[in-house]
Order: sequence, then C-alpha cells, then structure tokens
Amino acid sequence: MNTPTDSADREVGYDVPARPGMDEADIQTPCLVLDLDALERNIRKMGQYARAHGMRHRSHGKMHKSIDVQRLQEALGGAVGVCCQKVSEAEAFARGGIGDILVSNQVRDRLKIDRLARLPGYGARITVCIDDVANVAELSAAAQKNGTTLACLVEIDCGAGRCGVATPAEAVAIAQAITAAPALTFSGIQAYQGAMQHLDSYQDRKARLDDAIVRVNAVVAALRAVGLPPGIVSGGGTGSYPFESGSGVYNELQCGSYAFMDADYGRIKDSHGRRLDQGEWENALFVLTSVMSRARPGQAVCDAGLKVLSLDSGLPHVHARDDVAYVSASDEHGVIEDKRGVLRINEKLRLVPGHCDPTCNLHDWYVGVRNGKVEVVWPVSARGKSY
Amino acid sequence: MNTPTDSADREVGYDVPARPGMDEADIQTPCLVLDLDALERNIRKMGQYARAHGMRHRSHGKMHKSIDVQRLQEALGGAVGVCCQKVSEAEAFARGGIGDILVSNQVRDRLKIDRLARLPGYGARITVCIDDVANVAELSAAAQKNGTTLACLVEIDCGAGRCGVATPAEAVAIAQAITAAPALTFSGIQAYQGAMQHLDSYQDRKARLDDAIVRVNAVVAALRAVGLPPGIVSGGGTGSYPFESGSGVYNELQCGSYAFMDADYGRIKDSHGRRLDQGEWENALFVLTSVMSRARPGQAVCDAGLKVLSLDSGLPHVHARDDVAYVSASDEHGVIEDKRGVLRINEKLRLVPGHCDPTCNLHDWYVGVRNGKVEVVWPVSARGKSY
Repeated sequence: MNTPTDSADREVGYDVPARPGMDEADIQTPCLVLDLDALERNIRKMGQYARAHGMRHRSHGKMHKSIDVQRLQEALGGAVGVCCQKVSEAEAFARGGIGDILVSNQVRDRLKIDRLARLPGYGARITVCIDDVANVAELSAAAQKNGTTLACLVEIDCGAGRCGVATPAEAVAIAQAITAAPALTFSGIQAYQGAMQHLDSYQDRKARLDDAIVRVNAVVAALRAVGLPPGIVSGGGTGSYPFESGSGVYNELQCGSYAFMDADYGRIKDSHGRRLDQGEWENALFVLTSVMSRARPGQAVCDAGLKVLSLDSGLPHVHARDDVAYVSASDEHGVIEDKRGVLRINEKLRLVPGHCDPTCNLHDWYVGVRNGKVEVVWPVSARGKSY
Repeated sequence: MNTPTDSADREVGYDVPARPGMDEADIQTPCLVLDLDALERNIRKMGQYARAHGMRHRSHGKMHKSIDVQRLQEALGGAVGVCCQKVSEAEAFARGGIGDILVSNQVRDRLKIDRLARLPGYGARITVCIDDVANVAELSAAAQKNGTTLACLVEIDCGAGRCGVATPAEAVAIAQAITAAPALTFSGIQAYQGAMQHLDSYQDRKARLDDAIVRVNAVVAALRAVGLPPGIVSGGGTGSYPFESGSGVYNELQCGSYAFMDADYGRIKDSHGRRLDQGEWENALFVLTSVMSRARPGQAVCDAGLKVLSLDSGLPHVHARDDVAYVSASDEHGVIEDKRGVLRINEKLRLVPGHCDPTCNLHDWYVGVRNGKVEVVWPVSARGKSY
C-alpha cells in the first residue's frame, strides 16, 4: 500500500524513524506509531456500522492525511471516498489515486479555484462546498476553462457558527445558481456540526444534533419545494455519527478520528455513559517517546514535547500505564510524573495524543507495527498541505 | 543564501506558497512570512548588544530551524554558532555547513549517540549536554569508535526543574568524568532557565534569574576548586538575556525568539514596563492568512487554524489592525471578529503567532518579503526533525 515516496531509501534517525522489518524496540523516537491490528478493527467496525445503517461513509482525510490509511478505509471499511479541507490536500489525494474527493470547505482564492478545477484531470470526482452565491460563477468559470466538471454542495450552518449559510432561502438561491451554471452540478448539502463533537455528555451532543437535524430538514424541504432535492446530505463525526445515522435525512458520514482515536474523543461518553475509548473505538495511534533524563527525583523527562504533540485539546495520556503520568510539555520535552521512580533511561512509552488531527500533521511518517515488528512505514502524504 | 533544497523547481500552491519575484499579494496562504527588514534589524541589534556586553551569542536554531536564518545571524549579528535540541536538527545544520553546533540537551539513545559522534565529520565543532554521569562513557565510546571528539557541557538545573543536575557535587563528578574520558573535552556548563522566560513582569523574571545566578556561581566555584574552571557558561533567552549579560558569570547567550518575536514574548514587559514588542524587538514573523467565508454577520473566517498556528501559548493577534480580532481556531479555520463587517473575501491579514518555535515547525517554507515583493523562499530546513 506504500506510495512512491515510501521509506525504502531514507536514512533511519534522520529522514525516517524506522524501516519495515525492524523490531519495535529499535524505532527512533519521538514518532507516530500505528497499532495495525487496532486500526484495522476500527476501520472494519465503522464500515459495518455504515452498511447496517444504510449510510455512505466518506472518511475524513484531514485527520490522517495519508493515502495509505485512506486506501485501507476504502478496502476494509467500504469508504466511498475521502473528504479534506484544503485544495493542496485534495491534490495529494488525487495524485495518490484516490478516486472521489470532497473538499468540505470553501475555496475562494483565484489560483486555488483554478487548481481545484484541474483536479478531475487526475481521474477523480471532485466535490466542493459553497456558502456564498458569488463563489458559484468563480467555480463555474474555472471548470469551463479547464474543461472539467465540479460537483457542488451547499454548506449550511447547522449550529457550529463558522462557515455555511443560515437560512433555507440562501441555500435555495445557491443551489439554483449552481444548477444554472455551466460545468457545475448540484449534488446536495454539507451540514457538519463541528462544535458539538467533543461535548462530554451523550445527551448534550444529541440535543445539538437534534437541533441540526431540524435545520437540515428545513433546508431539504425548501430545496424539494423548488424541485432540487439534494442527492447527498453529508455530515457527522466521531462524536455524532449515531445521530446523523438515525436522522432519516443525512445519508453520508464524514467520520475521521474513529480510526485512530485520541485522548479528547476517548473521554467523551457513549449512550451507556461509557468512555468512547472503552468499547466503541480502540486507540490505534500513539506518539512513541523515550525517557532521556531522570536528574530530578520523582520525575522523568521524555523526548516528546509540543513539537510532536498538539496540545490544543490537552495533554496526552500514557497508554496502559497508571503508575506514571505526562504532566507538562515544553517544545521538545515532556515531564513525566514518576513518584515511585520506576522509569529507566531509554524506556519507551506510548502516548495517546490529546487531538489526533493536528498531531499527525506534525509528523512525516506513520510507523505501522504488529506483533512487535515494524510492518510498514507510511508517509503522512498531505502533511503541511494547508494551502 | 538558499540551500540546495530551495524553491526553484517547486510548484506554487502545492509545494511552495510563493516564488522569489512575486508580488506579496500573490502569495498562497496560509504561510509563514518574514519581514526581512525587521528581521535584519533584530539580528543586528542582538549582535550589537552581545558585543557591547562582552557576551558570545549562540543563536537558538530550535526556534527557526533554518540554515538561511542561522547564516544571517552569523553574518549580520556575529553569532558564534547555533544551538538546537535534537540530533536530527544538528545533522540538518551540519549538512547545511554551520560550523559550531551545540545540542543543548541530553542524548541517550544508542543510535542517536552514534549519529552525534559522527557529526564532527562534517567539519563542525559539536558540543552536547550531560546531566547523568552514566552518559559520559556512552558518548566517549561513540566518539572513540568514530574517531571524533565531542565537547561537553554539564547541564545544571538552575530553577526550571526539568533536566540538569541539582548540586555542585553532581556537576563536579560529571565534569571530572568527562575530563577523564577519551575523546571528550570538558567545555563548561549549560544553565538555561526556561521556566521564567515568559513571566510578564521584569522584576519577577529578574528574581528567578538572580536565583539561577546564585546556583551557577556555586557550581562554578566548586569546579574551580577542583581545577576545572568552566570555559563556557551558556544560557539566556529573549526574556532573560539582560540578566545573564550582567551576571558576571555567564559568557554565552542562547536567545532565539528575539529574531522573529511572537505574541507571547511581545506582551512581557521590559525594565521600563514597556511591552517587549514596543521598542525592544520588532515582529518579523507572521502567518499570512486570507478571508474565505463571511456567511455569518459580524465575523469572517480565515484559512489559518491550528495546523498552521501553534496555540500552546494562546491565540495569534492580527498585526497592525485594531478593528478586527482573531477569536477562535479550529483545525483549518480561524474565526475573526469583524463587528463592523470591514473584511472582504480574499483579504489578507498578518497574524502574529502566539509562540514562534512550534509555529515555524508546522511549515515547510519561509517567504521573505521586502517592499511588497517576495525576495527569498527559504526552507524550514529542520522542520519535523525531532528524532
């Protein structure tokens, strides 16, 4: 499953943290490690869930930014394609052979619009979101110029208060403009409620999604009334997918974090009041770190700080250890509370990052392990692709 | 000043955000922008300060991770070399021709020690820190094996409570072990007080550094008593360098952030109670961003979120604008409060990041601008080099 930029001719310790075939103990730290068994179980489970609920699953590539992980989601989990947030991410996925790509975001810059409109040339179906009627003519002109077609979703604000139109009337106006514009097709609506995904309580999340569903139904009714029923109603994340799946109006999920999990999603509760990382999804992603100083009694210092762990959603936790705790981070160091002095120099720990998406974006490689051996070293294909 | 991996054959919008000669208005966002005039003034000013105070300045490359910026610091600011935190960073600087490199950190992993011991082969003087006497034999063996010499600093904990030995007796024991070990030279002590750099008040910072100086003097006295006076006493950051410079015991500064500045250092106060970014240092580093949605009244959404801005030290501020404010970030979006609705789609804003070091590490390129034109596109040479 490796892409052309795989790890074969890279230097371990400078370019790459490991090489396939290595013992897990020889991996150079800090780096991202994937437990391949757990990853594959998560991917299969989401695929089964989506099928059982009559939903399409378009896996969110903004989380992993990896052509190899995306291929696994399509092969094992039946994902229908990828979504991502940036044109340069879409380019990375299209160049890597991913056939169906949704840019779940607005594209307004002239050069970015032109690049987006060229992407169907890679053989990929390209869909983009629109929340301003003025954007329709810009996208249409670029698609015509490049001899391509762009599928379009009207983005609605279903409660997150970021992008997206607020009223059915605005959504209808954009859908009509898309339908009238050459080289564009109206494919449906984008309605992702990002602001509620990490709320702790299942009931709190459900209340927000109930409100989103009311808004989505109103837009769908208005579109139907003008003869433009949306083919796709897309949304849903790891914190909300049961609600969209039971809504009767959404038909496509965009879950990303379920595949890797992180500390922030791990602590939220499912419908039984259980943590999401205790039953629903397994931690498959870790930042592997090594102890490199024990100069101060009661603490150890490891080699993973905030340049390899995004702290926006809190500190990482140490996986499968309750005798030690990661208590503070600086740029290149993590302080581990070790009251009983059990840690040794060069001892390795698996850290579950607070937030997987921006943590993955800090790294160039995933080291996939199984049974104590490095099985694959995958590039983070779209790392840093923020244009 | 470009390295071999410069921007010449890269594709604008996919690989690189800009190309030399472009108008500033055509830069693809989000990306790092350097105001070259401000950068050069900061660098010259620090060089003059160090000379006037009889200090060596070893600029901290962990901040910029750039061979080109480091060369500028040596050429215009008289920097004696670079410091960095990781062996892979040191490798990037050595391969880029930097001649004097301090790894201001412990190196304990077997493979990393071997790689470090090979680095003098690039023609660079290599210095490393030690806070555990057991590390001495490991470094000595690797240097002997590779036919090289490593200079060593004993790291002392001068109040930050992270790495470093706590007592003069431990420091003496390590210095004696270094002196006795083949292929190592004892060069002095590392005493960086990282924990106080960002305290708001000058007096609070001074009190912490006064305490650090007491600890450093005790270690220096103990080393002198056994006939091992330290040649180098190294430390000091952008929040503390006046104190080390006036201490009579430190002789080398390690300031990094002064060159770029950020919002967190900008808000701390100098001896006159003035913000550090109002007189002492200029903001030379920005994340350039574009407005890409205005769907919601009173706000705009820009294309710079937490994948291009490290939030560990707070939100960015919008440079030279008091009519709008960056109020929240998600992965790929920033919400800009725009009460009067003045912002337009595709309008560009310069954001001063909360914390420059981890923000630079998110990007592949610096776009250097002067007089409205892109003058250089420099790689972030050691980006992601965390091994």
